[in-house]
Amino acid sequence: MSLTLTAIPNFPLVKPGDDIAGLILSATSGAGIEIQDGDILVLAQKIVSKAEGRLANLSEITPSEQALALAEKTGKDARMVELVLSESNKVLRYRTNVLIVEHKLGFVCANAGIDHSNVEGLYGNSDEWMLLLPKNPDASAEAIRRKIEYQTHTRIGVMIIDSHGRAWRNGTLGTVIGLSGMPGLVDLRGKPDLFGFKLKITQVAAGDELAAGASLIMGQASEGTPVVHVRGFPYPLREGSLKELIRPENEDMFR
Amino acid sequence: MSLTLTAIPNFPLVKPGDDIAGLILSATSGAGIEIQDGDILVLAQKIVSKAEGRLANLSEITPSEQALALAEKTGKDARMVELVLSESNKVLRYRTNVLIVEHKLGFVCANAGIDHSNVEGLYGNSDEWMLLLPKNPDASAEAIRRKIEYQTHTRIGVMIIDSHGRAWRNGTLGTVIGLSGMPGLVDLRGKPDLFGFKLKITQVAAGDELAAGASLIMGQASEGTPVVHVRGFPYPLREGSLKELIRPENEDMFR
Repeated sequence: MSLTLTAIPNFPLVKPGDDIAGLILSATSGAGIEIQDGDILVLAQKIVSKAEGRLANLSEITPSEQALALAEKTGKDARMVELVLSESNKVLRYRTNVLIVEHKLGFVCANAGIDHSNVEGLYGNSDEWMLLLPKNPDASAEAIRRKIEYQTHTRIGVMIIDSHGRAWRNGTLGTVIGLSGMPGLVDLRGKPDLFGFKLKITQVAAGDELAAGASLIMGQASEGTPVVHVRGFPYPLREGSLKELIRPENEDMFR
Repeated sequence: MSLTLTAIPNFPLVKPGDDIAGLILSATSGAGIEIQDGDILVLAQKIVSKAEGRLANLSEITPSEQALALAEKTGKDARMVELVLSESNKVLRYRTNVLIVEHKLGFVCANAGIDHSNVEGLYGNSDEWMLLLPKNPDASAEAIRRKIEYQTHTRIGVMIIDSHGRAWRNGTLGTVIGLSGMPGLVDLRGKPDLFGFKLKITQVAAGDELAAGASLIMGQASEGTPVVHVRGFPYPLREGSLKELIRPENEDMFR
């Protein structure tokens, strides 16, 4: 059994209003990749956010008192902190240069996923433009999926991913922030193991496992390959949601 | 750019004393896979542990007072708790059926990675046999790597992985517990992004990203494909260690 992940070459720079599904269809076709039933497309968050125009300019933001206090403690720009707070349910941890929050979408990440790298060049040479996460990444993934399915007469999955830090270990990991048409979590509890004993584990975070693998070849910003085509995902496709992957706070011993 | 992960078919059941490198060479050869420079082999922890005879039988264990107290609070077998404590630096969290520790190897996981599924059939029909993690997984990976490199005249990487739960999100993720000949962490700080601005992030947990992707097709126990061959790892190989991936406790805000 093989899993093949291909970073789609020559994907254009994305601008607000662009049709991501259309760009993917052109780029895969140009690369000689024929989308088939069961394939999955993994998309970097930044292209979806840019297409949706999820931009904010720091010059237009007035920080609240809470933001000013937190800016003082973290050494961050108070307007940036205000923006992070406006995208978050709560602040979990902070220290100099670090601000970890529970995003409104439910997951835990630094700076509510807000970033300004790669935005500047498109909108004038300013580092005041910030890129926010898509408003509803599951819905974004679904819309892209439906258009590609319609055009290609296939049944596929679509994931939107971002690079997240984590507890306990160094380095970032590609992580799902939205998906459609595929499982986030796969429940193997009750399956027999090699010797016929029931497995005591396991719910496998199949979506996040794929996100991590795809992130590996998605390339960092300098390489510009924000879409990865996946063939050989080993679990049946079904409807799915980011929610499967989010541990509710009351079940989480590390929040 | 493509990354291809292939679960090697027909890998035999492993017994204490088995030569894992030899088994991999036979199985890859049998599957028509020629190992090349830059390839990576990802191994499920259980086959390395079994080959190294890392077994303990609960019937031979006398629980300490600490283990008895913790068993009472978690509802776990006190002898199992004793075994977990003997493999751990400290207990981080517990509740009914849950025991999260910092393993002596430095990482955080449930039950110190000790498991009994898949052991029983080999050693009589008893669920008293427990499988511990390899004593020094970096060294285990290196020994396997050296033998395969010698036999194939190649320069490769080897990783040993396990399925770990995590903070904040549901489901387990394939995670590195030892590696040799490849980076765990890749430092991209200071690289320019698409527009020539310096990337503010990022240290990428490349080893863990690959572990997660490989875990996806490693198959669960019922399928028995504990070795995954990887071609197309996008970063240069170098010497490496699990230590790169472990965040020291004094830098960890969630331990």
